[in-house]
Amino acid sequence: MLRTITYSVGSITFESRCYIPPFSEKPGPALIVFPNLWGPNDYWDEMLEKYSTLGYVVMIVDMYGVDTRPETFDEAYEVIKPLKADREVTRQRATAALENLAALQEVDSSKVIATGYCFGGMCVLELARISAPVLGVVSLHGTLKSPLALGQGDTIKPSVLVLHGAEDPGIPDEEVAGFMAEMRAVDADWQLVHFGGQVHAFTDRKANRPGHAKYDALTDSRSWGMMVQFIAEKFG
Amino acid sequence: MLRTITYSVGSITFESRCYIPPFSEKPGPALIVFPNLWGPNDYWDEMLEKYSTLGYVVMIVDMYGVDTRPETFDEAYEVIKPLKADREVTRQRATAALENLAALQEVDSSKVIATGYCFGGMCVLELARISAPVLGVVSLHGTLKSPLALGQGDTIKPSVLVLHGAEDPGIPDEEVAGFMAEMRAVDADWQLVHFGGQVHAFTDRKANRPGHAKYDALTDSRSWGMMVQFIAEKFG
Repeated sequence: MLRTITYSVGSITFESRCYIPPFSEKPGPALIVFPNLWGPNDYWDEMLEKYSTLGYVVMIVDMYGVDTRPETFDEAYEVIKPLKADREVTRQRATAALENLAALQEVDSSKVIATGYCFGGMCVLELARISAPVLGVVSLHGTLKSPLALGQGDTIKPSVLVLHGAEDPGIPDEEVAGFMAEMRAVDADWQLVHFGGQVHAFTDRKANRPGHAKYDALTDSRSWGMMVQFIAEKFG
Repeated sequence: MLRTITYSVGSITFESRCYIPPFSEKPGPALIVFPNLWGPNDYWDEMLEKYSTLGYVVMIVDMYGVDTRPETFDEAYEVIKPLKADREVTRQRATAALENLAALQEVDSSKVIATGYCFGGMCVLELARISAPVLGVVSLHGTLKSPLALGQGDTIKPSVLVLHGAEDPGIPDEEVAGFMAEMRAVDADWQLVHFGGQVHAFTDRKANRPGHAKYDALTDSRSWGMMVQFIAEKFG
């Protein structure tokens, strides 16, 4: 069953789309999925369908608000700029989505995992940095660095799985090294996978800019498999 | 069914132990497993049993010869020294084991995957470097560098999966970076997983030197799962 969850943060109204499995009499585990920079468009309706095969409650998050639905790459890029710069806003919106998911009667709020793609990977890592009430986060070809990166003395409760294209031109080895240093400083439970030869957006069937952002069926399948295994471990 | 395969390389006789699944009327896929520096001792009989649950033919390789069965860590360390230094000998012995496995009537020689632990990880990467007839190799907390490392113009046919403890004091980040550079130079199909907080020997139930070599049940399970997924992909 599909359900649209409407909620506000400040003056902005958001619509996040959910899948509820049949016969959800008891609260069950849930996945909160943060889209890439395109936001919750048709592509993410299909991704919601793909995720629904796992049998959990799934929410595709609207991080922009109902009045903001970019239709070109340039538009989308402009939309994420302020969210990349002001991570407090990112954290507020991501938290609001999470709270609205956790409040569903079909959801066991102690069993939620966040996954995110590209810009959405950035969002789930911000949830991890504030130890939002999720068991784990999975970033797929997501931005790793943050102006609010943690350091010695901070902690991260959720487990972190980063699925990274080793040749992603937007996330060079230095950024990966910086992220690993952050995870080490806070003694996180973290895993980072380098997919050799892969650039940005390896899960995105529409990505076709060789050397920059390109779909790869094998890596899509490998990263999905690793993610599913991580989810199975966490949901127990 | 267990079977001991005896063969020679030069003047040395080797005994590698195999598991053959029941009802192996047709040749099937096989795993060739390279032990850690202890060589094929009781621990590896148990590992053979663990591997047998996957349902494939399995060989636990003897890289030392029947007359060399180290009983202390210092002895074992002395045994691997010449093999670490002279990788041609390592390659010869690993190749001989692979040939003897592939020759079994129960084995489909076009479907073999090599896995290795610690010193054994080093062995499987040498098999990859010579593009031995395996579909893939998996190194678990294995040595990554090699005096015979490949470079521009070389190729690697087998897919490579490296499962690495991010805090392994024997395999620092620089060695990982060097290995990644090698894989990039030869345009390999490679994946490398950093397990955060993990040191050397995270799969070895007997390893208990905090900060150096230590068993970790969760990472043992995670790395096993990733390996099984890699095997399933390759065997199709």
